[in-house]
Amino acid sequence: MGFGKSFVILGSGNVGWHLSLALKRKGYRPLQVYSPTAANARKLAARLNCGYTTNTARVVPDASWYLIAVSDNAIARVAAARPLRNKRLVHTAAGVPLDVLSEFTASCGVLYPLQTFSKSREISFSDIPLFIEGSDNQTTIALGKMAATLSLQVRSSTYRQRIALHVAAVFCCNFVNHFIARAKEVVKKEKISFNVFKPLLNETIYKALKYNPIDIQTGPARRGDSNTIKRHLSYLKDDPDSAKLYRFVSSSIFDYYSNK
Amino acid sequence: MGFGKSFVILGSGNVGWHLSLALKRKGYRPLQVYSPTAANARKLAARLNCGYTTNTARVVPDASWYLIAVSDNAIARVAAARPLRNKRLVHTAAGVPLDVLSEFTASCGVLYPLQTFSKSREISFSDIPLFIEGSDNQTTIALGKMAATLSLQVRSSTYRQRIALHVAAVFCCNFVNHFIARAKEVVKKEKISFNVFKPLLNETIYKALKYNPIDIQTGPARRGDSNTIKRHLSYLKDDPDSAKLYRFVSSSIFDYYSNK
Repeated sequence: MGFGKSFVILGSGNVGWHLSLALKRKGYRPLQVYSPTAANARKLAARLNCGYTTNTARVVPDASWYLIAVSDNAIARVAAARPLRNKRLVHTAAGVPLDVLSEFTASCGVLYPLQTFSKSREISFSDIPLFIEGSDNQTTIALGKMAATLSLQVRSSTYRQRIALHVAAVFCCNFVNHFIARAKEVVKKEKISFNVFKPLLNETIYKALKYNPIDIQTGPARRGDSNTIKRHLSYLKDDPDSAKLYRFVSSSIFDYYSNK
Repeated sequence: MGFGKSFVILGSGNVGWHLSLALKRKGYRPLQVYSPTAANARKLAARLNCGYTTNTARVVPDASWYLIAVSDNAIARVAAARPLRNKRLVHTAAGVPLDVLSEFTASCGVLYPLQTFSKSREISFSDIPLFIEGSDNQTTIALGKMAATLSLQVRSSTYRQRIALHVAAVFCCNFVNHFIARAKEVVKKEKISFNVFKPLLNETIYKALKYNPIDIQTGPARRGDSNTIKRHLSYLKDDPDSAKLYRFVSSSIFDYYSNK
């Protein structure tokens, strides 16, 4: 199989979209897009200037790399397709072990990008940490070489480390976004533009990254300021879901620092 | 009292520290620092190049402004000091109504900066949204003028709006920091540097501010991906506090989008 620079992208979701476009920009040659949804496959193929298929049996057999960027549950099904037998397969999921691919080929790997993607938002791959794992030395080296053309932040990682990264990413991205969404709803009721929170959010992230977030925790729960907490819960009495979140996370913070 | 530019700062915590230094930079004249803790008072007075006292009875009587930046519970006690009777008093707390000052003077106000402060971290006031409230037109105008020399983002607000801002700030700052702290502990156990989360955190905040965070929510809870959630909870089995948080916030996200 060698260290060729052609690839097929299987999956046209957020990760497949950005990963394949980034590879093309770096000189890798897209041969084909596979997606079960024709409209998505066609749109990405047009961007990559290559063919597409909605049928795994029609995947072209001569690519150097087969990049599987479908949902976790679909990876094994896609990898089982006849044209992919004994090809170099790579999936992009944090939560799927390499074994899922190794039953179909001797050369396989994982390339997990630690980032949140949306199709509408252009993003530079060069800053994105890429976590790789290979079935064998040769594949790991080839995969590392490909990853290094995309990003300055390439690291080896085990399956267990990827799970930890994914758990932490849920905390840092999905949960953080949920709290920002709730905050926006709170101030919207008072006819306050959410733009006023921009400096606070930026400063919060800046400080959490610069210092140890455990050392710089502030706020009523950290201080054990029960008057303020009561006042906030009373304000939230018409929004029981936000009140429940407020109470739960405040207790978590209070307990965390009480037990230290 | 006029629209003079001299002030006394009462309180040498994070807000008092940064507010008084910013005022001095803008040509306001610090006359004195009051703090019950001599070391703190002395340190800030040295930076402001003025005197200090630890006794409210010794506060100088001739300042244009008395800025009370002490903890919420201490505001009324400080405002009751004899030298402050009928002076222009301003407190900086989100959660304290203006009434607490108006029993001591006819001219009082609130100046609430929506930001998180640490003494060790220099911060530019010019981007910080300042929310003001005055007891009467003349005070509101004078306070607005002072606020406008500090920041480009000055808005009037009611007590109820300040509470909403404070609740939302707890979500955006204190809770976000707590989740980042937990995430850091998770990956630390796997010997992964937390620096790899910088692009993800920055992108998360960028997107939440650019789009509507409700529309861009992603992750296993949003997708109802119970396999991934189970895997994450199983990973967290030795860290029951993080597991509890993970389960609770995931349910909150799932319920929130199920009910929409």
